[in-house]
Amino acid sequence: MERLYVVKIGGNIIDNAVALDSFLKNFAQLQGISKSKFILVHGGGKLATKLAADLGVEQKMVEGRRITDAETLKIVTMVYTGYINKNIVAQLQGLGVNAAGFSGADGNIIKAHKREVAAIDYGFAGDIDWVNTATLSKLLTIFDTLVIAPITHNAQGQLLNTNADTIAQELATALTSSYSVELIFSFEKDGVLLEVDQPESLIQQLNKKYYTQLKEEGKIFAGMIPKLDNAFSALDKGVQAVWIGKAESLHALIAGDTGTKIIHE
Amino acid sequence: MERLYVVKIGGNIIDNAVALDSFLKNFAQLQGISKSKFILVHGGGKLATKLAADLGVEQKMVEGRRITDAETLKIVTMVYTGYINKNIVAQLQGLGVNAAGFSGADGNIIKAHKREVAAIDYGFAGDIDWVNTATLSKLLTIFDTLVIAPITHNAQGQLLNTNADTIAQELATALTSSYSVELIFSFEKDGVLLEVDQPESLIQQLNKKYYTQLKEEGKIFAGMIPKLDNAFSALDKGVQAVWIGKAESLHALIAGDTGTKIIHE
Repeated sequence: MERLYVVKIGGNIIDNAVALDSFLKNFAQLQGISKSKFILVHGGGKLATKLAADLGVEQKMVEGRRITDAETLKIVTMVYTGYINKNIVAQLQGLGVNAAGFSGADGNIIKAHKREVAAIDYGFAGDIDWVNTATLSKLLTIFDTLVIAPITHNAQGQLLNTNADTIAQELATALTSSYSVELIFSFEKDGVLLEVDQPESLIQQLNKKYYTQLKEEGKIFAGMIPKLDNAFSALDKGVQAVWIGKAESLHALIAGDTGTKIIHE
Repeated sequence: MERLYVVKIGGNIIDNAVALDSFLKNFAQLQGISKSKFILVHGGGKLATKLAADLGVEQKMVEGRRITDAETLKIVTMVYTGYINKNIVAQLQGLGVNAAGFSGADGNIIKAHKREVAAIDYGFAGDIDWVNTATLSKLLTIFDTLVIAPITHNAQGQLLNTNADTIAQELATALTSSYSVELIFSFEKDGVLLEVDQPESLIQQLNKKYYTQLKEEGKIFAGMIPKLDNAFSALDKGVQAVWIGKAESLHALIAGDTGTKIIHE
């Protein structure tokens, strides 16, 4: 089966023009060498928060997750599917990569439903129901890289805000039916670290047992937990390999020379 | 050859939720009946102007055209390719139309260059060089409707703001190589009127000679002139039929029962 890399780039890279430029140049080079297909899933970074502040739209966060009210949905749609997505596409095109950008609504590629109101009402937050592998496979025959913004829809006219790590995992998992898929969560750090801000404490390989232990010891916490849950979930569902590491070291990351490799045992 | 309708919807329809909803319902119905392919090109409306005002970004207009400085480009990219494009796509998907949204940068479908600075510096305004008919034809085999935002790129990483009427004309013209194309400029009025605000003064058929005469008499002016120039240009370059009329009367417009038909002689 043809190789497909699903690469998530984190918000801190999006926010930093130099880091993003460097990442996209590496990405374009990798694309040229590998002759594989790519899906690039981007987060939103601080730009949506800044735009909301400039417009006087108050942002509510609960446990690190944004509460998406109607005005916030409008802002994240503009920033994620508009500004960020189209600038990444234009930059990749400028680097010779035939990229095209999509939200989950385009071609109904990611169908979600509004998260049910339990203890917390997340507003227009979407949990994924399914991924349209037929349409994505067709798009991958036309384009080298699909650039995916973290906005989905409910197939009844409503856009929804969806976590980008989860989108990357769901796309990677669904496309194992047609491709040999590898999933890379890339961000500003070197990988999963035992001590935050100490790059030398990098964990090179992480299995579920060790992960559980580190969570219990409180050494892995906050946003890293859903990311790692997504990573293990992808591995369990047939993704060939999952890496977590520095966006600017994409080549070395894929080659297994750096970052944290998620492993079964 | 298969029939392709290129439909431009004007800014006043975009700005009016009721009119847009009604238009999209008619559009979805027409799509169901006609079994043809569709490209929907949308303008931007007043939303970008409002967002610029809310953000304190001063908007400069010269002869009805927006001067696109860097901050304004950011705003129009967010509003056109983000908010408007994705909401139209989600609504069409909700109505059962397999729509997907694109800017000119996506898949390099519309290559433009920054307008040269002459008497006026329009900033990041793009004049179209060519349309990627090969990629558009492939996309039209996957999707029923392509929804196009009026943002192009220079293929070197720079997004550009481009007039939506011109995009509609250029797409219609380029695709005559593969489709039997009809072009519809739809907006809030009944068509080309001899007296503004008098619907009964509708011109049912307009040829170039009559158009030239009406321009000389000052009866056609302002934004209607570039629109009609685009309309005649499309007809000259092989588009089968060109109509101008009310967005909410799309069926009747295409059937020739209302609006202004642009004719050769």
